[in-house]
Amino acid sequence: MLDNEWGTTRFPLVPGHEVIGRVVEAGDEVKRAKVGDNVGLGWFSRSCMSCSQCLSGNHNLCAANEQTIVGRHGGFANRVRCHWVWATPLPSNLDQMKSGPLFCGGITVFNPILQFGVLPVHRVGVIGIGGLGHLALQFLCKWGCDVTAFTTSDAKAAEAVSLGARRVLNTRDSGALEKAAGSLDFIISTVASDLGWPSYLNLLAPKGRLHFVGVPPSPIALHAFPLIAAQRSIGGSPLGSPATTGQMLDFCGRHGVAPITESFKLSEANQAIEHLRAGKARYRIVLENDLG
Amino acid sequence: MLDNEWGTTRFPLVPGHEVIGRVVEAGDEVKRAKVGDNVGLGWFSRSCMSCSQCLSGNHNLCAANEQTIVGRHGGFANRVRCHWVWATPLPSNLDQMKSGPLFCGGITVFNPILQFGVLPVHRVGVIGIGGLGHLALQFLCKWGCDVTAFTTSDAKAAEAVSLGARRVLNTRDSGALEKAAGSLDFIISTVASDLGWPSYLNLLAPKGRLHFVGVPPSPIALHAFPLIAAQRSIGGSPLGSPATTGQMLDFCGRHGVAPITESFKLSEANQAIEHLRAGKARYRIVLENDLG
Repeated sequence: MLDNEWGTTRFPLVPGHEVIGRVVEAGDEVKRAKVGDNVGLGWFSRSCMSCSQCLSGNHNLCAANEQTIVGRHGGFANRVRCHWVWATPLPSNLDQMKSGPLFCGGITVFNPILQFGVLPVHRVGVIGIGGLGHLALQFLCKWGCDVTAFTTSDAKAAEAVSLGARRVLNTRDSGALEKAAGSLDFIISTVASDLGWPSYLNLLAPKGRLHFVGVPPSPIALHAFPLIAAQRSIGGSPLGSPATTGQMLDFCGRHGVAPITESFKLSEANQAIEHLRAGKARYRIVLENDLG
Repeated sequence: MLDNEWGTTRFPLVPGHEVIGRVVEAGDEVKRAKVGDNVGLGWFSRSCMSCSQCLSGNHNLCAANEQTIVGRHGGFANRVRCHWVWATPLPSNLDQMKSGPLFCGGITVFNPILQFGVLPVHRVGVIGIGGLGHLALQFLCKWGCDVTAFTTSDAKAAEAVSLGARRVLNTRDSGALEKAAGSLDFIISTVASDLGWPSYLNLLAPKGRLHFVGVPPSPIALHAFPLIAAQRSIGGSPLGSPATTGQMLDFCGRHGVAPITESFKLSEANQAIEHLRAGKARYRIVLENDLG
């Protein structure tokens, strides 16, 4: 968003779309969140509440959705405004200093597990062990799956195992990918780079799905034949709905899933962004508001 | 297969993989089909019966499957041999002179309706009104869906409506496709040509699926963003399982679904193939064995 890579940024930009805060004011029509509550807010800040997607509980797919940091002030501001449906109460058993990243990174990788019926008997893969990937790993391991992590980093490979991955494959080792052909039921890709997608499709068992939550810069080009022969699918999804966000928070509390974070003061936001741009964040940076 | 377009043909080729015949001999271990029964046989002629796909009822996804016309004599021969599981008894209320095309073209388009939970409340599209597409139209209309046909042919447009399509869009009319954006839950493509797939992806409602049973010559190239934003999927599937084939035949009997066929004698096979190559078949050619 800072660099307008998706072409949707409106400047001046006040970033911050993984926000934890306390409700200081609420309109008469506000449900659920009360003044004084701790709540979390992610990418979406408003839905129409009346289209068939909203009425089906899929507020995350509402075509009229507004975003927390598009034409609004995000979490770097002192106050953030949103529709109540996107302000999800934070359960008291979650650490509010660590929970911000659940509201965009976390829900983005938790949601497809529910949407596509991933089960504890499934063999799954996570491509990219970063802000989203390290949460996907935790969710899928606690879900009971047999989890393979894909990364190019040796340091991250060790960390993936400590988070519960049963094995780690190097993203660029085509021999290793070839050897694991047909073995995975579900692969979630969190990377924003172009990989050899036909090799990943080939990793899928019959009825398997290669699922994108990260946006590669180039189109994904796949021949129809390997899709048809083994009834494979590819697809993508955005963040989850408000109801799914609540289920994720409950799951995190019961299973001890938490973002691995580094902490900076809000007054050090520029240093934090520099740290992030250098690819050094492990795995998400939390800014603490020291500016009032 | 005649031209080895998929690179899997073994010559000499005896074609014919939509076969209706009478069982004249059966081994000791044969279940279900008895000598004298009328049965149908499609693309697959043998499965291993013991892998996890076979044991789950997904014999159509068995990696060891053999094909009726690959390294075997197909339906143009006097006798065809297959494993009993792929010889599906033909219900007596189906016309055996017309039912052959159900066993490859029919089951290929019927199967994904079941696999992906298409419901009578869904708005669906069929791309290409030919051997497969005219059956997909019938299945989906009888299923109770709101059906849109996509074709470039005016004559086929009229026929699509007579088969139950609620509307017809010209495959190459990008304005019409643009206008229908976001309106379909499920699109099945039966064509073997390269179309503007991003426009078809754009036709899908949230959670919609663009499903391939025809094989376009070039890779399908789609950007991740429209997949992610509306939780869309693309995928493909081969023929259905033996159990699904039985369900299809029952559905055809109860709902009057039948291939539209032209008839030639087997002794006129070369004329029939010429007719087919000229794109004149409406919609499937049945060869009657007059050679004994």
